[in-house]
Amino acid sequence: MDPIFLMNSLWVMVSAVLVILMIGGFILLEAGSTRMKNAGHIAGKTIFTFGLASLVFWAVGYGFIFGSDANFFVGMSDFFYSGTQIEDANLATAVFFVFQLAFAGISITIALGGFAERAKFSAYVIFTILFGAVVYPVIAHWIWGGGWLAEHGKQDFAGSTVVHLTGAMAALAASMLLKPRIGKYNKDGSANNIAGHNQVYTALAVLILWVGWFGFNAGSTVAVDEGFFGFVALNTNLAAGAGAVAATLISWLVLGKSDIVTILNGALAGLVAITASCAFVDTWAAVVIGFIAGILVFYSAKFFEKKKIDDPIFALSVHGTAGVWGTLSTGFFATPELATVGQAGLFYGGGFTQLGVQLMGVVTCGLFAFVVSFAILYIMKKLVGIRVTEEEEIMGLDMSEHGSYGYPEQFADSHAKIDAKIDA
Amino acid sequence: MDPIFLMNSLWVMVSAVLVILMIGGFILLEAGSTRMKNAGHIAGKTIFTFGLASLVFWAVGYGFIFGSDANFFVGMSDFFYSGTQIEDANLATAVFFVFQLAFAGISITIALGGFAERAKFSAYVIFTILFGAVVYPVIAHWIWGGGWLAEHGKQDFAGSTVVHLTGAMAALAASMLLKPRIGKYNKDGSANNIAGHNQVYTALAVLILWVGWFGFNAGSTVAVDEGFFGFVALNTNLAAGAGAVAATLISWLVLGKSDIVTILNGALAGLVAITASCAFVDTWAAVVIGFIAGILVFYSAKFFEKKKIDDPIFALSVHGTAGVWGTLSTGFFATPELATVGQAGLFYGGGFTQLGVQLMGVVTCGLFAFVVSFAILYIMKKLVGIRVTEEEEIMGLDMSEHGSYGYPEQFADSHAKIDAKIDA
Amino acid sequence: MDPIFLMNSLWVMVSAVLVILMIGGFILLEAGSTRMKNAGHIAGKTIFTFGLASLVFWAVGYGFIFGSDANFFVGMSDFFYSGTQIEDANLATAVFFVFQLAFAGISITIALGGFAERAKFSAYVIFTILFGAVVYPVIAHWIWGGGWLAEHGKQDFAGSTVVHLTGAMAALAASMLLKPRIGKYNKDGSANNIAGHNQVYTALAVLILWVGWFGFNAGSTVAVDEGFFGFVALNTNLAAGAGAVAATLISWLVLGKSDIVTILNGALAGLVAITASCAFVDTWAAVVIGFIAGILVFYSAKFFEKKKIDDPIFALSVHGTAGVWGTLSTGFFATPELATVGQAGLFYGGGFTQLGVQLMGVVTCGLFAFVVSFAILYIMKKLVGIRVTEEEEIMGLDMSEHGSYGYPEQFADSHAKIDAKIDA
Repeated sequence: MDPIFLMNSLWVMVSAVLVILMIGGFILLEAGSTRMKNAGHIAGKTIFTFGLASLVFWAVGYGFIFGSDANFFVGMSDFFYSGTQIEDANLATAVFFVFQLAFAGISITIALGGFAERAKFSAYVIFTILFGAVVYPVIAHWIWGGGWLAEHGKQDFAGSTVVHLTGAMAALAASMLLKPRIGKYNKDGSANNIAGHNQVYTALAVLILWVGWFGFNAGSTVAVDEGFFGFVALNTNLAAGAGAVAATLISWLVLGKSDIVTILNGALAGLVAITASCAFVDTWAAVVIGFIAGILVFYSAKFFEKKKIDDPIFALSVHGTAGVWGTLSTGFFATPELATVGQAGLFYGGGFTQLGVQLMGVVTCGLFAFVVSFAILYIMKKLVGIRVTEEEEIMGLDMSEHGSYGYPEQFADSHAKIDAKIDA
Repeated sequence: MDPIFLMNSLWVMVSAVLVILMIGGFILLEAGSTRMKNAGHIAGKTIFTFGLASLVFWAVGYGFIFGSDANFFVGMSDFFYSGTQIEDANLATAVFFVFQLAFAGISITIALGGFAERAKFSAYVIFTILFGAVVYPVIAHWIWGGGWLAEHGKQDFAGSTVVHLTGAMAALAASMLLKPRIGKYNKDGSANNIAGHNQVYTALAVLILWVGWFGFNAGSTVAVDEGFFGFVALNTNLAAGAGAVAATLISWLVLGKSDIVTILNGALAGLVAITASCAFVDTWAAVVIGFIAGILVFYSAKFFEKKKIDDPIFALSVHGTAGVWGTLSTGFFATPELATVGQAGLFYGGGFTQLGVQLMGVVTCGLFAFVVSFAILYIMKKLVGIRVTEEEEIMGLDMSEHGSYGYPEQFADSHAKIDAKIDA
Repeated sequence: MDPIFLMNSLWVMVSAVLVILMIGGFILLEAGSTRMKNAGHIAGKTIFTFGLASLVFWAVGYGFIFGSDANFFVGMSDFFYSGTQIEDANLATAVFFVFQLAFAGISITIALGGFAERAKFSAYVIFTILFGAVVYPVIAHWIWGGGWLAEHGKQDFAGSTVVHLTGAMAALAASMLLKPRIGKYNKDGSANNIAGHNQVYTALAVLILWVGWFGFNAGSTVAVDEGFFGFVALNTNLAAGAGAVAATLISWLVLGKSDIVTILNGALAGLVAITASCAFVDTWAAVVIGFIAGILVFYSAKFFEKKKIDDPIFALSVHGTAGVWGTLSTGFFATPELATVGQAGLFYGGGFTQLGVQLMGVVTCGLFAFVVSFAILYIMKKLVGIRVTEEEEIMGLDMSEHGSYGYPEQFADSHAKIDAKIDA
């Protein structure tokens, strides 16, 4: 057996495991960013939706993205994937399948971040199926499955657009249709800070996501050639670091103190932003891209809060804003030399030409993801409802949706306290 | 040096690390499934018992399982393993050793799950040594070390029987001899729900275990040939997802709400069940096996609760019931084509013949593990005692066994509250 | 492409990811070992300082350690590393860079452990930059970058001295200059136990560090030759297990109960101690080294407490005392046969000769790290201050340094309780 084939398979297998580990990061990030009364719900539903998304990806997602006999939107073969090996592939197809399954799982998890603390459990079930079947696969097919954006040279090395922007646009649709949480906005339109309940969870979450991102980005080489994954990992780490440092500075300058939530969002924004370009830019550019992402995420969070779009876990700013910035910055910073080394090859005709293609990709994919998600959720809202009742929301979704508290020994007290604050 | 030898070593090394990461999953699963007053004890003893089990495996466990000069029960060489390389091995022997050490560590951790919230720390010490020296090695020798079940073609690709059923049978013996926790059953025989204190821990635990299981199952190829580990990983992920989905559905149907504990147990049951057959079945069969496991685990938990066998962390249902189902389902679903690809080769004479061998394996191994564990614990109970006093149990094992609280700042309150409930 | 080059790159890439995962272990270890009012601060600053340390390492750290045109202290090339491949290297240079970056990140994290619960956030910022630029690189250059200690045959396979002792010496300087936390010592000189708030965090931390240490130690082979990493991993696991077991025993003997904090410190001390010699000693020696480390860490913690050096997360005992023991024990236990297999080759002229070199290395590196760190912190103390005010410390650093609580829903109560105790 060809050792390169085996090594490619091994590296991508390890990377797939790292990407799936990111689901654990999201469990902690979402649970820690929200309140105790919803923590069991948020943590448990994430296991469920990743499980369900896995089945949907197996049944139709993979075939829609990579199948043959493709129409404009999707491919039409390889449903209920049996493990078949593609001839002349550079790695074991089953490994590639698991790697892609993990990406789809991350995107739906990001999307469902927009549901936090107010959506019915049944809404998670239905939307996971539909997003996994008709939103994500179309965009992944367009960019990674040989679709029209691939043909136009759209670059998205590891999914700033496919995974992060798509998820964030669905989260935006959800946030708009669900409306803000009770207590988020006052009658005069000013916003309250509903603090997440555990910053140890969220900090650990960021570290786990950081670690998983090495699989996400460096694994997207889908090959070991020349150990190029090391360069991708290096850029990834630098952008994350620069994002954290920039966010610390900007919050210190603006707020007078370094804000922990902002620091953490900064690291994540750096990671999201470098995702598109990690294989195509110099190390100094990775630092610049991450640094700017760390500043953007701070102002983006302020912007959405002002616009009355309630985003408890910052899905829109971290994955949306930084995802757009990452995709566009590829156009600014990609170097011809690296572009030829990077897996897909970069259609490089000077920064601005590529920038145009990137912009077209962001706009069309962003619009598609937003419009289709909005339509799905709008119909769901009218037919079956997507938000819990006011009483259930105040009680907390642990109890209302699942009949047990995530923190049964601590709950009674804190519940009362928070409610008192919100009532006040 | 042969690159295949090196790649096999590399892949199994990575897998060993993933299996050891599962110990972290068990720390969170057990701590989260029990009460705050026992959390430090449960988390800390898991580090201790894994450390102790490592030494026992080094001293005698490995030699008993894989040593030469074997009698019916165990091999008799390679004690205090020095790192020697086996000639003509397909991978570095020290790597194989660490991989096997990790499996032994998981099995003892499962077994000790049956001790939760009422066993003395000294009972953990003694039973870890004896289980690691005389229970686990015998079964591992029978199936993986060239013993009589191996000769009869018993298939257990990654340890549904060896690791999970063995651990669960010891947990059953412990649960029976320790008796239920104070407050679990009322005088009229009805059961109380003593809720675990942190569902974020348990959900994160499931994700960490899920991730670690890629090492557990896909690493059990013990080789990189043709990237077959990818197919094993694919089946593993599908079964976990199907288990989570099935458990969600069944709890929704029966209880009227999706129960978080059941969802999490469902994912784990899917993982346990696919462990035996992950290399031998089609992807659709992996979904079916996982789905059925997710339903079985729900009814199994009800069954044990009714039978007054108090199982705080569901070791019996998740590892026992799903372990049996996994072992037997190999007989139903294994396909001849895959059987020849799978590492060990499957003695395949049509489903029912293999089913017979599987059944014989489950019964003999299950009985051996139960009887010997029961005998050990019975003698321990009579000689030194295995359960803390009523006063100590109410106080919590953090304080009684170790002299400090796991949550010193939160404890006083919650302790009082819980006791008040139990007294009421 | 040479498959060995690719496999070396792959193995070290995986190892680098595991070492970076250790940052997550430190988040949990430090947060769990301290009080709730400081938890968000401690967790969040660790993400920030790892990010900042990454940038510093990229800008100057790597060039100082491994650059050419070296003077006595540091190399002088390769600043702002661009990803260049070193000719004739055995692996991708960018992979090696990320691996080394991770080590530098661990060392600074250990150093900052000495700041816990009383240092200003600005002190973290300044010291991270200076430690990363002028303390760590000098010692790493001396031992790993071809400096004078390397020329004298100083052995430090994976960094007992470079990473752990250096970090611990900086932590010692910080502990001395910061002075003990409010409430740690009574007027009569006796010490109070200020218990960490979450032992589930600390136990999970130890497991994550244990897992990451396979990358730390076995990855330090920096090559896959003959699968030797498996032997290194085996020694690492045995030493950790022996450390946990020894610490359990000694605390049981001395205190009458097995102390959870001691068990956890014992496992870590075993890991730190084996770090220097993991490639050079027999398995039985790894057990002995780990066992002795587990006992030393217990008495070391008592010693520092008596000396009024307040060390909330035991950085001095775990990384300092065990780091010294590990470095010296290499002199006692290293075997000539293994020494030639180990990457660097061991200058072996009988135990005592090597012991002399080891001792010289410990003394010179320990002194350099302590003196320079002390000088930096002393100047910082005089110029800008390094400790928060008494009021801020009592309030907690979450609020004083960052303006939000790490546990907003739980805080008010527990804060009041703890303060009451300290006041009493």
